[in-house]
Amino acid sequence: MKTGSITLTNIGQLVTNDPERDGLLGIVEDAAVAIEDGRITWVGDAADVPEAAITQDCDGQAVLPGFVDPHTHLVFAGDRAGEFARRLRGESYEQIMAAGGGIQSTVQATRAATLGELTDAALGRVRRLQAAGTTTVEIKSGYGLDLENEKRLLAVAAAAGSAVALDVVPTFLGAHTVPEEFAGAADDYVDYLTEVVLPECAPLARFCDVFCDEGAFTVDQSRRVLEAGKQHGLSPRLHANQLAPSGGAQLAAEVGAISADHLDHIDDDDIAALRASGTVAVLLPGVSFSLRTPQPRGPDLWEAGVTVALGTDCNPGTANIETMPFVVALACLEMGLTPEQAVWSATRGGARALGLEDRGQVTVGARGDLVVLREASYVHLAYRPDFPSVRTVIKRGLVTAG
Amino acid sequence: MKTGSITLTNIGQLVTNDPERDGLLGIVEDAAVAIEDGRITWVGDAADVPEAAITQDCDGQAVLPGFVDPHTHLVFAGDRAGEFARRLRGESYEQIMAAGGGIQSTVQATRAATLGELTDAALGRVRRLQAAGTTTVEIKSGYGLDLENEKRLLAVAAAAGSAVALDVVPTFLGAHTVPEEFAGAADDYVDYLTEVVLPECAPLARFCDVFCDEGAFTVDQSRRVLEAGKQHGLSPRLHANQLAPSGGAQLAAEVGAISADHLDHIDDDDIAALRASGTVAVLLPGVSFSLRTPQPRGPDLWEAGVTVALGTDCNPGTANIETMPFVVALACLEMGLTPEQAVWSATRGGARALGLEDRGQVTVGARGDLVVLREASYVHLAYRPDFPSVRTVIKRGLVTAG
Repeated sequence: MKTGSITLTNIGQLVTNDPERDGLLGIVEDAAVAIEDGRITWVGDAADVPEAAITQDCDGQAVLPGFVDPHTHLVFAGDRAGEFARRLRGESYEQIMAAGGGIQSTVQATRAATLGELTDAALGRVRRLQAAGTTTVEIKSGYGLDLENEKRLLAVAAAAGSAVALDVVPTFLGAHTVPEEFAGAADDYVDYLTEVVLPECAPLARFCDVFCDEGAFTVDQSRRVLEAGKQHGLSPRLHANQLAPSGGAQLAAEVGAISADHLDHIDDDDIAALRASGTVAVLLPGVSFSLRTPQPRGPDLWEAGVTVALGTDCNPGTANIETMPFVVALACLEMGLTPEQAVWSATRGGARALGLEDRGQVTVGARGDLVVLREASYVHLAYRPDFPSVRTVIKRGLVTAG
Repeated sequence: MKTGSITLTNIGQLVTNDPERDGLLGIVEDAAVAIEDGRITWVGDAADVPEAAITQDCDGQAVLPGFVDPHTHLVFAGDRAGEFARRLRGESYEQIMAAGGGIQSTVQATRAATLGELTDAALGRVRRLQAAGTTTVEIKSGYGLDLENEKRLLAVAAAAGSAVALDVVPTFLGAHTVPEEFAGAADDYVDYLTEVVLPECAPLARFCDVFCDEGAFTVDQSRRVLEAGKQHGLSPRLHANQLAPSGGAQLAAEVGAISADHLDHIDDDDIAALRASGTVAVLLPGVSFSLRTPQPRGPDLWEAGVTVALGTDCNPGTANIETMPFVVALACLEMGLTPEQAVWSATRGGARALGLEDRGQVTVGARGDLVVLREASYVHLAYRPDFPSVRTVIKRGLVTAG
């Protein structure tokens, strides 16, 4: 990927997330940042900024690290607005399934789509999330559920990222649900996944994920998939305790998963296990918002010292949401995080959840991934939930959007 | 205001709100709409559309009546992001007041702003809300609280609307709060309002509003202001039962107010009174969302047969929200309305709340105010809460945004 050199001047409020500075966000006021060949080379007072060939005046507004979204399913075809409306009208899950809703309808639509259709749809989404400030995004497979289609999803994810100068972290989620051709034979599907699909998909992915939950995969099945993933060089992460207290959080701690995601149904033992294993809790407030269910215990996880990250979960069934500023607003207003916690979790927290120590903070040596706001403070991300707060997006020193 | 002629063709889903058609929204599929000189002259099947000089192909997407936002305070200066952040960090109302927050800080900033500053700020807001599909907006005074400043706010409201071809309905809200110069002397302020301010402001407004609530104006004070407004030709509406069961809803019914707004604290007797008086319930889901308080009883009001409208309440303290598609999403996901109820309330309901029978529906003779979506269905307004769903906005037959 190309890199650039640019110096941002006249920053009114700079969020550094630098642990050597004061406060959670390491705020510097009246700041400047220099980027050379894609890396941050200087951070400090605006008055002391070194001379530079290319500068951008930030007009006294706020600058943050680029958002890191550690959980999306954004390569899909089709639309589930009808299912969404049925839910709002009070129909039951069974009625919605009988009307052809649910994840299987997305699997059918995604398998039926051409490569061009899938790529166009994914490109639209990455362009919009990039314009809203995301500079690194994780993208999962999981609507293919067979060898050919899972490979296709991972290839589209990579193509969408490179087309718009966005860092894409690919995750293999063959164990998203049991496809219809294996209905009633989940163990056989796990055999097929681990023996046939994983070996060929692993070179296209960095992580292996499983939907470990009631109605999805059991703890034992999930462990088998994650262990097989490890053998093929994929680091484990998992969907845990979204629908029920299903043992996923404990499994995440046991296998040393880098993250456990969702966590709507956790108890204090689960929190202690995540804390002890150093597993990042990836919370997805757009899901509870879209499903009208209670939010996960974000403030409790923060208080217990668990590393918390925020993501969109961009998907057509439970969170048709693309942009991290909106997720920051939901994390504050729906989940009860402070603006400082939400901003940290949407930047440095996301980087931790992806094992990317070189981003999510504005320090010398880190990637030159920054967003310039139209506002004087990071607080405005939550204070103005329907305002396009991000003015300019800088990726490895290049202006990529805004 | 200028008018235009245009015919919209290839509409996949047309929301008419026509009571003579089926369902709450009177949907017509595969439709077309003709507008001549700013009025709708033809609505029907796309196959039968009359020939027209100027046409717009809607590409099979959805078309709705323009949104009517019946409750905003969008002429203001200053910013209360600091107060917002303090609230999220758990500080008390008293701590926030001690730090200089609250409505008085907006009154100070608004009085101190130049006319140009106020107009620029208001213009930015009306441009954004118009681009998101609002074609008629109510704007209240209420941050001036003296003769000169209340007149100035109403003049800015009118100027902002005419600058962008948006219909502005001005409301006099001198009784928004007691200004500091009348601290402890609310009755004296009511005397001043009714004797000095109202007579000069009435020609600039259509409605008279009062914040009737605990900590604001009593029922008796509110009645005095609304009766004085009537004598000067202003129709009454009021902020009622937002903070407490303060008698506002009953007062609205008693004085024949066209709307009672907020209604967070109402009982079944209040609902029955609003139903009997034909008063429109204007609900503002962005306020409860921004304050993290329970939503008003929208589904109960609908079920009881009260006419329900939705608004943004755009203001710097309790809802820094500008766009009606986001309010539709909140009405569904936070308040529990169905998508059909929310869309009707954001269009026809808003028109009813402003006494404007000529809009909020797509019928022959109605104003040619329409929005074209980027999506196939009105459901997407709630299904994609962070997506810019509105592609084109047509006001009196002219393309004004998008």
